[in-house]
Amino acid sequence: MEPRVAVPQGDLGGIAPEVLLHSLADASRRSSCRPVILGHRVALEAIAKEMGITIELQSVTTAEEGFALPTDSPIPVLELESQMPETNLGRPSAELGMASVEAVLRSTNLCLEDGADVMVTPPISKESMHLAGYPFEGQTQILGETCRSRRYGMLACAGELRVLVATRHMALRQAISKLDPRFVAKQIRLAHEAARETLGLVAPSIVLAGLNPHAGENGAFGNEEQLVLEPAIQIAQEEWGFETAGPAVPDVVFGQGARGEWDIVIALYHDQAFLPLRMLPRETAYSIFVGGKVLRTSPLHGTAYDIARSGKADARPFAFSLERGIDLAKTRLTCA
Amino acid sequence: MEPRVAVPQGDLGGIAPEVLLHSLADASRRSSCRPVILGHRVALEAIAKEMGITIELQSVTTAEEGFALPTDSPIPVLELESQMPETNLGRPSAELGMASVEAVLRSTNLCLEDGADVMVTPPISKESMHLAGYPFEGQTQILGETCRSRRYGMLACAGELRVLVATRHMALRQAISKLDPRFVAKQIRLAHEAARETLGLVAPSIVLAGLNPHAGENGAFGNEEQLVLEPAIQIAQEEWGFETAGPAVPDVVFGQGARGEWDIVIALYHDQAFLPLRMLPRETAYSIFVGGKVLRTSPLHGTAYDIARSGKADARPFAFSLERGIDLAKTRLTCA
Repeated sequence: MEPRVAVPQGDLGGIAPEVLLHSLADASRRSSCRPVILGHRVALEAIAKEMGITIELQSVTTAEEGFALPTDSPIPVLELESQMPETNLGRPSAELGMASVEAVLRSTNLCLEDGADVMVTPPISKESMHLAGYPFEGQTQILGETCRSRRYGMLACAGELRVLVATRHMALRQAISKLDPRFVAKQIRLAHEAARETLGLVAPSIVLAGLNPHAGENGAFGNEEQLVLEPAIQIAQEEWGFETAGPAVPDVVFGQGARGEWDIVIALYHDQAFLPLRMLPRETAYSIFVGGKVLRTSPLHGTAYDIARSGKADARPFAFSLERGIDLAKTRLTCA
Repeated sequence: MEPRVAVPQGDLGGIAPEVLLHSLADASRRSSCRPVILGHRVALEAIAKEMGITIELQSVTTAEEGFALPTDSPIPVLELESQMPETNLGRPSAELGMASVEAVLRSTNLCLEDGADVMVTPPISKESMHLAGYPFEGQTQILGETCRSRRYGMLACAGELRVLVATRHMALRQAISKLDPRFVAKQIRLAHEAARETLGLVAPSIVLAGLNPHAGENGAFGNEEQLVLEPAIQIAQEEWGFETAGPAVPDVVFGQGARGEWDIVIALYHDQAFLPLRMLPRETAYSIFVGGKVLRTSPLHGTAYDIARSGKADARPFAFSLERGIDLAKTRLTCA
């Protein structure tokens, strides 16, 4: 069976509904999954009409009813309880935030209760959420808290490359100082758990990037590989039985990941991940939620209020996220 | 007129002669330049025959005579004075080293004396050079010393992206410690001199990458941008009149460089340059010598003794270096 895909409508004030409708209007993509949009059907139909997107929607009363429909039927929409925002263009509002959060929460719960196989989330606005009284920083936090994850995060991906970043937004010096064997070992564990629980891989191939040029060339250019990274790999192996390759030559291993040679590459600092990721085609950039049982993919772009309904929005990143979400769900369904 | 290209034969024991002959056998590439090979004609002809490369060579007695030939004539070879190596396959030797170094030295002198517009160098072997009694580390050093450069180095390039790396093979921590305003200002000066003297650009667009994620976001993630990089840009402006953009967001600026939006991007540490560079197609990777008046391009690969004459050598990197050398020479000839 085609995977059941929960699609929250995102923030209606930005490009979310356009890219979602564009992506699902494609017949071959439509027929490769069983989607249910969590949103406001009337608002979505008006946007489709305004944007000249040929797509048929239909209301359903439960997600189950929607997922049971044949793949060539009009796309089912499960109506939100939140009020349909009266105006929905170009600026954040409490109504938009209410609807955005409800859609994500309900999609997450569907996945948690095995009512859906995967969720694919268009962008929502932090500002709209805050206006609606929600304190969340973003969808990843909503998912993490709803899943009651002790540790959660995301894989930053482009094309075939999937990267877990050990340290995020901090000074490069600080990121280096943060690296000790136990801290890195925990990142390795998170990568392995993500590969097993989220990606559904039984024997994932995971590699830890080195810190120094050429991974230090046996200590010639830095010794963090010997003092921190090798011990971290050993801890993960001995304590949890997780086998991890590396420390690998950084300027080689990300290219290998981009050719699909690794399931996950662990990067040590923000730019070690994003320098290579951002050289790959922009339309293939997406993220995968990790740290919970829920499978969720998402494009990396934002709501883009400024170009909503202008015809300038690029639907390819959402379409790519959707396709990857479908692929990952199929892998999980096959392995389960 | 088509640029005059001096082509030393490289180390005959590796893949150098094959990739050179393959590249020059292409009719449209042949007709876009006036090449002279500095090498051993008989050895090159034997290799062409062995490898099934259809190419005609002819001996000339001076480079001038070779460069004066029409672009559809057999490729002129200026015979080296070094003895032709008796065996030239798969392992380093003093004879190979003698011939390699002579060819590079004579090509460099041709360029210095305005007898050639550009030189494009296939790889030579450090080991063969050492066996021949030369203490050089590589061709860049031969060029630097022959040009009597006070400062020299190379731009690491792939496709449209050209990068000057401020610090090379050292631990990442050490590279960060090396960054002070005057040191970085000198790298900026080297980039500007390279752009003007080597690339022939009158008003080059040069940008300095930041050190921290998002270039620190106004000090939120590190302050090297304010304390080191901005002052360095200011020094280069005030002392030498060189205008430089940045400090730029690292994971954005290299993608811009790859789209041709900057003439040179200055990277602060080895992997900041090579993580993005190595995501670009391998066959477009090359280097440009900087720090002297000589224009020289070169592929980044080595002699590859182990696959010489096996048919496995990829000629595209040398061909790409040759094409870029021709393009750069045309720019210099136009601007001069």
